[in-house]
Amino acid sequence: MHDCLIDGEISNLVPVTDRGFLYGHGVFETIACKSGNPVFWDLHLERLAAGCKRLGLQMPDKTTLLSDLQTVCAGKLISVVRICLTAGDSEHGYSLTSPAVGRRIISCQPWPEAVELPRLKGIEMPIADYRLVHNRTLAAIKHSNRLEQVIAATEPVVLNAGEGLLLDHGGFVISAVSANIFLAFGEQLITPRLDRCGVHGVTRAALLQEFGFRCEKRRVTQELLSEADEVFICNSIRGIWPVTKIADWEFDIGPVTRQLQDWLALQSPLLARPA
Amino acid sequence: MHDCLIDGEISNLVPVTDRGFLYGHGVFETIACKSGNPVFWDLHLERLAAGCKRLGLQMPDKTTLLSDLQTVCAGKLISVVRICLTAGDSEHGYSLTSPAVGRRIISCQPWPEAVELPRLKGIEMPIADYRLVHNRTLAAIKHSNRLEQVIAATEPVVLNAGEGLLLDHGGFVISAVSANIFLAFGEQLITPRLDRCGVHGVTRAALLQEFGFRCEKRRVTQELLSEADEVFICNSIRGIWPVTKIADWEFDIGPVTRQLQDWLALQSPLLARPA
Repeated sequence: MHDCLIDGEISNLVPVTDRGFLYGHGVFETIACKSGNPVFWDLHLERLAAGCKRLGLQMPDKTTLLSDLQTVCAGKLISVVRICLTAGDSEHGYSLTSPAVGRRIISCQPWPEAVELPRLKGIEMPIADYRLVHNRTLAAIKHSNRLEQVIAATEPVVLNAGEGLLLDHGGFVISAVSANIFLAFGEQLITPRLDRCGVHGVTRAALLQEFGFRCEKRRVTQELLSEADEVFICNSIRGIWPVTKIADWEFDIGPVTRQLQDWLALQSPLLARPA
Repeated sequence: MHDCLIDGEISNLVPVTDRGFLYGHGVFETIACKSGNPVFWDLHLERLAAGCKRLGLQMPDKTTLLSDLQTVCAGKLISVVRICLTAGDSEHGYSLTSPAVGRRIISCQPWPEAVELPRLKGIEMPIADYRLVHNRTLAAIKHSNRLEQVIAATEPVVLNAGEGLLLDHGGFVISAVSANIFLAFGEQLITPRLDRCGVHGVTRAALLQEFGFRCEKRRVTQELLSEADEVFICNSIRGIWPVTKIADWEFDIGPVTRQLQDWLALQSPLLARPA
């Protein structure tokens, strides 16, 4: 069992009455940490706050969250910290009668081994059969209703490849199961709009902050994707993984992807590709 | 804290690594019990099994479930038992590498006080602003991704009324937040098709078994609803609640609703209306 704090106390158990457990009524973040320093901390907090607002939760004090985080990863050079905020214990079925103080669960996991090599070599991924539904109320935030991702990730071809491309019901490209996606056409970047489904990834947000001037958020058809010069996916732990093949379309690992990886490595050595 | 068994052991705490907690990867049932006898047990088991199949869980042995249920409500004349089956502890993020033996959580709650009187007097309900999305993969089963219901139930007018009508994105009538809905035109019954969203309620299933010969499952427009002679909602604990008003449309409590309530009372006195 990993180190875990629940409301500041050492525990890895939640009551079965927790609304996170009952209904998936919560939000979470997965954060790369080096010597207790969370990468892109402000962006993680921003998304947490947006999720809390959308789901009627009170956002905890930021210093409390940071203190919890530093407690669970104390003594670890690198680790993955998961912050989960739930709406606390249920009172009256589905409804929430007032903004929930809720419950905060901060846990620490070992840094995964398999994330570095794909930064260098890239990955191939199939297209998942499962298609994301449109839900403007739940889009963008990282809430705990993740059955869509579970279903897609468990499709045999996706499971086998370790990742898969997600389309929406209209056939538009949205993301990978556990990462956002970018296309490059020369120097120009494109990433899908996430107003109807998908998650506003923190690495995506960091890239948009820095390179937004040459990145367009738009609807991405499969045809457009197939014509891209370069494709990559990104998340908070993997950093940037070049994509060399999706379905039958092949892509080179090109200079734009390498440039953005280099920029990311400057933000944190945790996200650098192996030499 | 209510009586609760987790995998047969007395406990009301689940690990934070449980996929039900992490992703809402589970299914549940809410069951009326009288002296340890669950009402419509076979129908609850049938829906559980359908949910397990859809979400990659192994359905536990039925005698084990019944034994757990009878343990948690031992000594209670009437109670509500909640069975929750989750996909167990997470191994590799979203994906499930093999059908999960999972975790079974069976808890007992006191019988709620407020369910009887509305059987006699009926209820009024507003239409929720939130509209259900279409998801054929997740429709019908009672999974733990319930943010849609949480959001609708928390709308101030719905919260105030204690219940609300749910439409889908197309504006079709689907259900109440926590109950199914039926319309009566003379002796003829109509209930919404639930192939795109909504939950296959157990009381609905019981009514369809008995009265299916005069009940049509179809798309229900708001216009059709407004023209019904009688309207009622039903679930496993409330039984049948007549609906006297939805938005500005008023309905009488009529003979068909009373006939079905009488039939339900014969199935279990827990579902009878007060004298």
